[in-house]
Amino acid sequence: MSSVSTTLLSRIEHPVVQAPMAGGASRPELAAAVCEAGGLGFLAAGYKTPEAMREEIRRLRTLTDRPFGVNLFMPQELDGDSRAAVAAYRERLADEFARYGVEPGDPERGGDDGYDAKLAILLEEPVPLVSFTFGCPSRRVLAELAGAGTATVVTVTSVAEARAAEEAGADALCVQGVEAGGHQGTHHDDPLSDPASNGAGLGLLTLLEQVREAVSLPLIAAGGLMRGGQIAAVLAAGAVAAQLGTAFLACPESGAHELHKRALTDPAFPRTELTRAFSGRPARGLVNRFMAEHGPQAPAAYPLVHHLASPLRGAAAAAGDPQAMALWAGQGHRLTRALPAGELVGLLADELAAARDAFVPGRAA
Amino acid sequence: MSSVSTTLLSRIEHPVVQAPMAGGASRPELAAAVCEAGGLGFLAAGYKTPEAMREEIRRLRTLTDRPFGVNLFMPQELDGDSRAAVAAYRERLADEFARYGVEPGDPERGGDDGYDAKLAILLEEPVPLVSFTFGCPSRRVLAELAGAGTATVVTVTSVAEARAAEEAGADALCVQGVEAGGHQGTHHDDPLSDPASNGAGLGLLTLLEQVREAVSLPLIAAGGLMRGGQIAAVLAAGAVAAQLGTAFLACPESGAHELHKRALTDPAFPRTELTRAFSGRPARGLVNRFMAEHGPQAPAAYPLVHHLASPLRGAAAAAGDPQAMALWAGQGHRLTRALPAGELVGLLADELAAARDAFVPGRAA
Repeated sequence: MSSVSTTLLSRIEHPVVQAPMAGGASRPELAAAVCEAGGLGFLAAGYKTPEAMREEIRRLRTLTDRPFGVNLFMPQELDGDSRAAVAAYRERLADEFARYGVEPGDPERGGDDGYDAKLAILLEEPVPLVSFTFGCPSRRVLAELAGAGTATVVTVTSVAEARAAEEAGADALCVQGVEAGGHQGTHHDDPLSDPASNGAGLGLLTLLEQVREAVSLPLIAAGGLMRGGQIAAVLAAGAVAAQLGTAFLACPESGAHELHKRALTDPAFPRTELTRAFSGRPARGLVNRFMAEHGPQAPAAYPLVHHLASPLRGAAAAAGDPQAMALWAGQGHRLTRALPAGELVGLLADELAAARDAFVPGRAA
Repeated sequence: MSSVSTTLLSRIEHPVVQAPMAGGASRPELAAAVCEAGGLGFLAAGYKTPEAMREEIRRLRTLTDRPFGVNLFMPQELDGDSRAAVAAYRERLADEFARYGVEPGDPERGGDDGYDAKLAILLEEPVPLVSFTFGCPSRRVLAELAGAGTATVVTVTSVAEARAAEEAGADALCVQGVEAGGHQGTHHDDPLSDPASNGAGLGLLTLLEQVREAVSLPLIAAGGLMRGGQIAAVLAAGAVAAQLGTAFLACPESGAHELHKRALTDPAFPRTELTRAFSGRPARGLVNRFMAEHGPQAPAAYPLVHHLASPLRGAAAAAGDPQAMALWAGQGHRLTRALPAGELVGLLADELAAARDAFVPGRAA
């Protein structure tokens, strides 16, 4: 581990990382509550303007002086085929736009998500940690952040991605299993071998071990974790910390929509699936009408589909209709506890300690 | 835990269970080597005649006097739709039968897999443990086995299945994550909500926690486990033991075909998927030509498809062609170690002890 990340992580009391959840959930209030309770809070820069990211960071700094992270989305390569597929998907969704009374969004609106401008801000006003999703930044970017005193984490879903991130100079990896809610952070979205096809994505414990044996970086385990006993499990398997998203989604400090929070434990939403329906990239959410009807036909064209369909989600939420919202959720969603985030961090730490004490291996009884 | 299973499990030195692998891998020699090394060996009665099962049990008793298990397949309910779908699939496979020069197998050949006759033998000549796959036996069957001094384990892949098995009187559960090689032991194969569609199956750690909170039975964790560190993880998460199949598949004592053993670490087979192509029920194997070409169209009609396509697999194996064999493998297949089974059990126990010693939770650095 680099001295940067060693120094950072030694300042975290509990090995509990709040996952960055783009789209509104990861508000500064949520990150601050996690940080103040001894975990690592995260802001999500994805889908935000560079200036909005800067404002959130400044606001978070007024709420806590503890270390925190900021997550960036990597720009995506798009080709003419993607654009043609998005045009076809737009036609497919015509009835949906009519139903909710909105116009399709401009697929190109997000550009490259302001990647360069966000990096420039993060070098101007360095933060303790920056993590990346949907790809691996260049060696130069990682070196510049390290030079600014910022620890870097790259999200990986395979051994090949882990090796690429180590080679590029990342300080640590976020190892994301297929159980995770929201987007899979796969570096290249390949429709022929992706986790949205036939359960091909790797479960967390199997991925963690394969990555651990392939690289020498510290690993943060993510995917379906909701309890301290599960955090104990990933630490026993060699992770240095656990990252939890869905567990924090229903906290009062989370900016997730109330319908989304309630759906997590609503028996009407018994299961999750990976889908490209909402964004063009495999992401796990509660199965609802929109996902069931459009998921199988949605193209691999992120973030074009995200911006195209964004007005639908907004209109559905405004109408109180969860059936066309993106109800991102990990496989552990039924175990959601709608506690204040600081209280939840404390409870997870207590459960972790109890699991450690109960762990007397070598006996099967 | 019942006194039966308490007594049984207290006689196992290491919390390592060798998964029953129907189709030839789980020979008495493999089970004996695991038992003699202090794990729990298993015979697979599935696809065998009742008499062949009896002979294997008798042979195993000549090789070890330690406790072992026998796995039974639950009979399946089939309807007219299943049979029509199998007829259509037979037409689809016509070129395959011609290519390998074999006639289609009789889909009905397996009947109910000799379930009643096998149970009668297991009550006549009781064994230490019997586990069940593809369903939950009746309360009466579980009580009769308990009366004979046999511990019972039911394989589950969901909370609902776990509750049903506890209610029926099982002594323990085998909690199978989506990472597992071979068949998912789901009780009812529902094409609309099964793990072969869009990564809907639950990863081991998330399933284990949800089951642990729903029932009070001892849990054996299965799915993608290849190393002692992963066994430490599932014990830390509350399991009493770990069940490993793929890890034992390439052992010299395993009866798996040599092409199957070699494929586990062959870079030409980089990934697994769940498929109904070979049997009519979701099962995880290395992606090969047959799976890729026929998986999406294979019907939910187990075991009819298994018996229909069985001659193809035999002919492909005889021809040295792994592309039409059922190369069952869990998601950890790349970590296969082709060691003698007893040596592997010892190594897993050493790794488990090392992971326990290295486990210093509560710190993120």
